[in-house]
Amino acid sequence: MKADLIIYNAREIATMKSGSKAKCGSDMNDAGVIKDAGMAIKDGKIIAIGASSEIQQNYSWDTVIDAEGKIITPGFVDSHTHPVFVHTREDEFAMRLAGKSYVEIAMAGGGIRSSIASTRAASEEELFELAKGRIIRMIAQGTTTLEAKSGYGLNTESELKQLRVIQSLNESLPIDIIATFMGAHEFPEEYKSDHESYLKILCEEMIPAAKEQGVAEFCDIFTEAHVYSIEESRRVLSCAADHGFKLKMHADEIEAIGGAELAAELKCVSADHLGAASDAGILAMKAAGVIPVLLPATLFSLRSRTYARGRYMIEQGLPVAIATDYNPGSCNCDSMAFTMSLACLQMGLSPVEALAAATINAAHALGRGDVCGSLEIGKQADLIIWDIPSINFIPYHLGSSHISRVLKLGKTIWQEN
Amino acid sequence: MKADLIIYNAREIATMKSGSKAKCGSDMNDAGVIKDAGMAIKDGKIIAIGASSEIQQNYSWDTVIDAEGKIITPGFVDSHTHPVFVHTREDEFAMRLAGKSYVEIAMAGGGIRSSIASTRAASEEELFELAKGRIIRMIAQGTTTLEAKSGYGLNTESELKQLRVIQSLNESLPIDIIATFMGAHEFPEEYKSDHESYLKILCEEMIPAAKEQGVAEFCDIFTEAHVYSIEESRRVLSCAADHGFKLKMHADEIEAIGGAELAAELKCVSADHLGAASDAGILAMKAAGVIPVLLPATLFSLRSRTYARGRYMIEQGLPVAIATDYNPGSCNCDSMAFTMSLACLQMGLSPVEALAAATINAAHALGRGDVCGSLEIGKQADLIIWDIPSINFIPYHLGSSHISRVLKLGKTIWQEN
Repeated sequence: MKADLIIYNAREIATMKSGSKAKCGSDMNDAGVIKDAGMAIKDGKIIAIGASSEIQQNYSWDTVIDAEGKIITPGFVDSHTHPVFVHTREDEFAMRLAGKSYVEIAMAGGGIRSSIASTRAASEEELFELAKGRIIRMIAQGTTTLEAKSGYGLNTESELKQLRVIQSLNESLPIDIIATFMGAHEFPEEYKSDHESYLKILCEEMIPAAKEQGVAEFCDIFTEAHVYSIEESRRVLSCAADHGFKLKMHADEIEAIGGAELAAELKCVSADHLGAASDAGILAMKAAGVIPVLLPATLFSLRSRTYARGRYMIEQGLPVAIATDYNPGSCNCDSMAFTMSLACLQMGLSPVEALAAATINAAHALGRGDVCGSLEIGKQADLIIWDIPSINFIPYHLGSSHISRVLKLGKTIWQEN
Repeated sequence: MKADLIIYNAREIATMKSGSKAKCGSDMNDAGVIKDAGMAIKDGKIIAIGASSEIQQNYSWDTVIDAEGKIITPGFVDSHTHPVFVHTREDEFAMRLAGKSYVEIAMAGGGIRSSIASTRAASEEELFELAKGRIIRMIAQGTTTLEAKSGYGLNTESELKQLRVIQSLNESLPIDIIATFMGAHEFPEEYKSDHESYLKILCEEMIPAAKEQGVAEFCDIFTEAHVYSIEESRRVLSCAADHGFKLKMHADEIEAIGGAELAAELKCVSADHLGAASDAGILAMKAAGVIPVLLPATLFSLRSRTYARGRYMIEQGLPVAIATDYNPGSCNCDSMAFTMSLACLQMGLSPVEALAAATINAAHALGRGDVCGSLEIGKQADLIIWDIPSINFIPYHLGSSHISRVLKLGKTIWQEN
C-alpha cells in the first residue's frame, strides 16, 4: 500500500493508546509501547503502526524517516496557556523573592493590570508577532496542539482583538491552536466595585460577540475568592453554555470555594489548577466527567509548599491532565517536558502517568481526544522523536531539550540542527 | 587602538565585577550593570568595557558583533559535575517515584554500583564520546568553565582512566574543564567491610599516581554518615593536600556530621551540598574562607522538602556559589539557568545573587576568580549573549533557552540558529 511517509527503526513508540477515552486509573501508567516500531502516514493521519519491519514491507512511500533507534511519543498537548500579551513580568518575580506583597507589586505598576493596560494599547500585529515567537519556542519543545486564552483585554474590543490574534496564529503556525474566551480573567479596574455592570458586559456583549464572530471554542473564568465568586461564575458560564461555548474553569487554585463542584454541576470539559480542591469537589468532577488540568509549574513559580493532589485524583480514577499555564505573571514556563518533571517530583506521578497527562488526557481536556494525543490508526500524525534511552528520561532530565524532531500531521515542523 | 573583536549595542552588560574577590553580602546583589554597553577583546581577554559608543570610537577590530540590544552576562561556571559515566539512570528515577528504597534499587542492579561497573568496563574512547555529547549540551546552555570529577572507577586504573578522559575533553572542547580526583566517591563493593585497605589504596596508590600523571587539580570526597566518616575524610584529604591537591568536599548533604567544620579545618577551596550544615559549620567555613557550593537541583530531583540554607549563608557573609551537580543518579541537570531558578525559588536568592553564585563565586570555587566569572579588563572574554529583557528573566523563565550566543576567550563557541 502507498503511504505519504513512513517512519521506521524507532526503538520504542509510546503510543499512549486509549481508544476514544481518556486514560484513567492504572491505564494511565500504560504507555502502550511498541518496540522496534514504525508507522505509515497518509493525508496527515496514521494508517498503520506496528513492527518496523512490517511497515517497511507493507508500504511504499514518498518520504521516509529513519528514527535511528530513537523514541517516539505523541506530540504534547498544552491545554492551558495565556500567550497573547505584550511584556513578560520578570521584575515582579524579583519583587516576590524580595518579599514584596501582591499589593506592593500592584502599586509599583505590576500585576495583571500592567498586562491589561499594555494589551489594550497594543496593535493586533504587535500582539501577533510577540505571541508567535513564544509559540515557536513551544513547538521546539514538542507542543503540537495548544490552547490559548484571551483575558488581558477585559473589554469587548480588546478581548476580541486577542481572540483574532489567536485565530491568526492558528492559521499561520503549523500546529492547532484552540481559542478560549476569558473575558472573566479578572474584573477590570473600572468595574472593581461594580461587578454587576461588568457581568452584564460579559454576558450581553462579549459572549454574544465572540460567538457571532466565531473566534473562540471555549469559555473560561477565574473562580477564586478574590476574583469571580461561585454565583458570578455560574452566571457567566451558564450564559456561555447557552451560546454554545464549551466550558473551562480556573477552579480552587488557592482556596477551596467550591469551584470543582461548580465545574461538575455545569459539566465543564475541564477544571484547571485545583491546588486546594476538596475531596467532594474532586469526586463530583469524576462523576460528571470533568477533566482535572493540573498546572504544577505555576505553584512551583509561586514558591508554593503544596501542589494539586494529582496522585489522589489518579487513585480516585480521574483522567488527570497537565499543562504549562504559560503566562507573563505567575508562570513563564513553555516546556511540557519540565511540567512532566514537576508532575513526577511534586505530585508523585510516574513518568508514564505524566506523559499520559501531557498527551492523551490533555487532548481530551480540549475535546480533541478523538484526533490527537495518542498514536493510533486514524489519528493525526502529531509526534515527537526523542534522542533518549527511554520515556523515563523525559521527566528525569532537567535542562536541555532532547527532542530531535517534531511532526504535525505527518510534516516535520521542527528539527534539531 | 586595535582589538581582535568588539561587541557593541548591548542593552546591558551584567559585569558581575568583583575585583580579585568573591562577592559577599549585599555585593552579591550588585550585578555591576553597564547600560548601552560594549567591550573590546584582544588575545581572548577583555581590554575595554564600557559605553557602546566609546568602544566603537576608540577601537578598530577584525571582527565585530552587534549585540542588537541584547543582554550580556559572564559565561556560567559550573563548579561541580560528574559527567564521565556510561548510562544515565532514568529507570531509578521511576523506581524512586514508585516508592522503591535505596536498597531495593541497589538490589535491582541500580545505584552508583551500576555506574561503577559500567565505567570500569568502558573504554576511554567510549567514555570520551559520551561525556563529550553531554558537555556540548552544557556549552549550549552557557557553561564556559566546567569542573568534572572522577569517582565512578574506584580503583586506580579506572579512576586514572576517567581523569585522562577529562584531560582529553579539556583539550578537545572549547571550554576550560578542570579535573577533580574523587576516588573517595564511595567505598567500592570489594572494600565495603574493609575501609582500611581502600583508604590505603587511595592514599598510597591513587593520590600519588593522579599527582604524578598531572591529571587532576582538586581532590574531593563524599563525607556523609553512610560513606566517608570525618576521620576517614581528614585522612584522605590531608594526604591529598600533602601531594599538592587543592581540596573540595561533598559535605553534610543529608546529615550534619561535621563536614562543614572539617572543610574549614582543612581550608578546602569549597564545601559542596551542605543541605544539613550546622550554623557552627557555616560560620567556621566563613572564617576559613571556604566557599559553599550549593546544588539545589539535586535536592529537587530527590524530592527534598528542604534545601541548603543559601539565604542564611549570604546573610552571614559567605560567598555562595551554585552548580548543577550533573550526574547519572541523583541529578541529571545540565542547565545553570535552571539551577538559578531553583536558587531563587527554593533558597530565596534574588536573581542577581543567583547570577553571582553561578558566575564569579563559582569561579572562585574553582580557584579561577582571577581569570573568569566576571567581565572586567584583563579577564577572559567568556560570556553569554541573551535574548531577554533583563537578567531577572533568566531565573523567571522555565523551559526553553533564551541564549543567542556563547563566547569563550572571545570566540563564538555556540550560536542559536
